[in-house]
Formats: sequence, C-alpha cells, structure tokens
Amino acid sequence: MKFSPLVDELIHALKMLPGVGPKSAQRMAFQLLERERKGGLQLAEALQRAMSDVGHCSSCRTFTEEDQCSICTSAKRGMSGQICVVETPADVLAIETGGHFTGRYFVLHGHLSPLDGIGPDELGLSLLEQQLASEDVSELILATNPTVEGDATANFIADIARKHEVKVSRIAHGVPVGGELEYVDSTTLALSFNGRLPL
Amino acid sequence: MKFSPLVDELIHALKMLPGVGPKSAQRMAFQLLERERKGGLQLAEALQRAMSDVGHCSSCRTFTEEDQCSICTSAKRGMSGQICVVETPADVLAIETGGHFTGRYFVLHGHLSPLDGIGPDELGLSLLEQQLASEDVSELILATNPTVEGDATANFIADIARKHEVKVSRIAHGVPVGGELEYVDSTTLALSFNGRLPL
Repeated sequence: MKFSPLVDELIHALKMLPGVGPKSAQRMAFQLLERERKGGLQLAEALQRAMSDVGHCSSCRTFTEEDQCSICTSAKRGMSGQICVVETPADVLAIETGGHFTGRYFVLHGHLSPLDGIGPDELGLSLLEQQLASEDVSELILATNPTVEGDATANFIADIARKHEVKVSRIAHGVPVGGELEYVDSTTLALSFNGRLPL
Repeated sequence: MKFSPLVDELIHALKMLPGVGPKSAQRMAFQLLERERKGGLQLAEALQRAMSDVGHCSSCRTFTEEDQCSICTSAKRGMSGQICVVETPADVLAIETGGHFTGRYFVLHGHLSPLDGIGPDELGLSLLEQQLASEDVSELILATNPTVEGDATANFIADIARKHEVKVSRIAHGVPVGGELEYVDSTTLALSFNGRLPL
C-alpha cells in the first residue's frame, strides 16, 4: 500500500539521510506531519539555504557560507603559524572542543583513494602547497585518521612539506586516556611503544 | 566551537527529527553538504510541499493532499460497509500490508487522553458519529492499541456505535503467530484465554 504521493515522496527523501531506513523515515514523516509542521518548514528552509549557500573556505576548505571561515579570519589563529591537516570538518570540531590547538586548519574532505578517483587534486593539495610556499608556516601537523588511507595521505603530504622545507609532524597514536592496556588492540599498543617519549 | 551560522542552523533543525541527537544531526548535515547536495535540495522541497499541502482526508482523517484519500475514493472499499478505527496513519499501513481487510478506515490521530487535553473533538469522533448516522455502516472494527488509553478510547467509541445501533467489534488480542507461550506476558495470555474461540 502506498500513502498519498506527497507523503511517499517525503518518506523517500528522508531515507537519503545517513542511518535512516524505511521505518525511521516513515516515523519521521508522520511525526512531522502530526506534530511538527512548523519545525518541518524550518528544516526545509535550513536545508534549502545550506545546500545552496554553504561552500568551502578559500583558505582551509572547511564548510562556510563566507569566503573565509571564522577561524581563518581570526588574526589570533594565524600567529602560531601552525596548520593542522584533518580529513573532515567534523575533525575540526573535535579538535576545537579540546581548545588546546591555537593554529589554523586545512580540511582535505577525504583521504587519498586512487580506486575511488580521489587524488591530490580532489583533496586540494595544490592549495595547501601554495600556502606552504607563500605563507609563513612554522609547522604542519598531520591529523589524518590512523587508517591505511589516512597514513598514506599523511606520508604524501609530508613529502610536499619537506619539499618546501616546512617542519612536519604527525599526531601521536597510542593508548587513549582512560583506556586499559588489557583491552587495547595490538596495533595501537605497537604504535604507543614506537611513539614513546623520554621522561 | 560553532560552525558557520547556516551549518549550525541546519544541524539544529535536523535535531528536531525523532531519534536524531546532536551527533547524528552533525553527521547528517556533513554528509548532505559533502556528498548529497542534490538530495538535500530534494528533501527540502519534499518537506516544504508535504508540510504545506498534506492535510486530512475528509472521510477517514488519514494524511492526504487530496480532499479524500485513495482508499475512501475507491468504490470497492466502501462495499463491505466495514470501518476500521485506528490510532495513526501508520496503523493503516500495517493493516493494508496484510491485504486482508477490504473496508474503509477511520484514523483518530491519537487516543483519549484528558490530561493532555485530547478529548472526543480532537479525535474527530463527531465526524465518525455523523458517518455512523448517515452512511450504511455494517460493522465498526476497533483496532486501537491494547493500552489503557487505547482500551478506554475503544470503549468510548463502542458506546457511540451502540447508540446508532451499529455492530461493533474489537480486534483480538492474544499470543502472536510465531510467539512462544513461555515468553508471552501474563496479560496477553489472560486476554488470549478470554478471547478463546470454539473449535
């Protein structure tokens, strides 16, 4: 059985959201129609505006509707000369939540993945190279994910940084705070031994 | 840390969907911005149209953008003269999936709940009463949920039906097919004993 065309269309469109299956989409549609018409219209407008207007920051490639994001426009953030390279805008948020990093970011929007057609151009590495060449960058901190692709991407970017004689580092991988050695996987443990610091 | 205003607004609006918390909303927003701009715009349009145009069927009160829903306009569905009373449009779908019921529906959009200010008027019972009085209804089948409120609603509607001398019944509650007696709760078991049928 089908609902009326508009309701079907709404359920179908909601299924496109990550983690939303047919049942959840149906529940969402009915909840909106039943109790949240105003909220639904607000969501429609927010979607419409975000999809049309949000682009990438011209310096760090994170999402913003301005030419430059709030971090790149802040003079304070440029002072240290550090640039942290991350895979996604969500990573920027994770690091900003800590509040300990005072430099700027560079968002790759992915990692090198030749099989999926994602090469240096898709990650905006020419923009990064340009910044390394022309700006006063004191250190490039690579915070890509500790996966095969993330590591490959980090190595690739490290080569670029060395070419421009910019100091380059990778964030530490090891036992997380609050973790118990017993439950940490062997690769992480091996990394934590390799990355040990003198006391 | 905050994202740019439009992205924040989108994340905030997505949180309004049932079952979507801050993290899921963020993931949805980024996924849409990163890979599904077209889908996002489609969702915005579907939402916009559904929220503005979808109303209630003038006969059965289910969701439709027409004056009457497809079931109420079908001559075949009116022939049996049966009306099945359910709480939500999702219940209509559940029954229609079975395909065994050939009558029409009446959707309450809730159940009697005086504390929440939901009385007979909010459930459209005057419309139902009007149909019982003027149309050729052979049987009113009450399929409200087997909860305290659902039972109270069923009893309330049964009184109305009796007033109009319309045959009224309640769907059976008991052990579900494929269920094992051992794991069925005692209230359901009691109901299944009360509702036993002669063989």
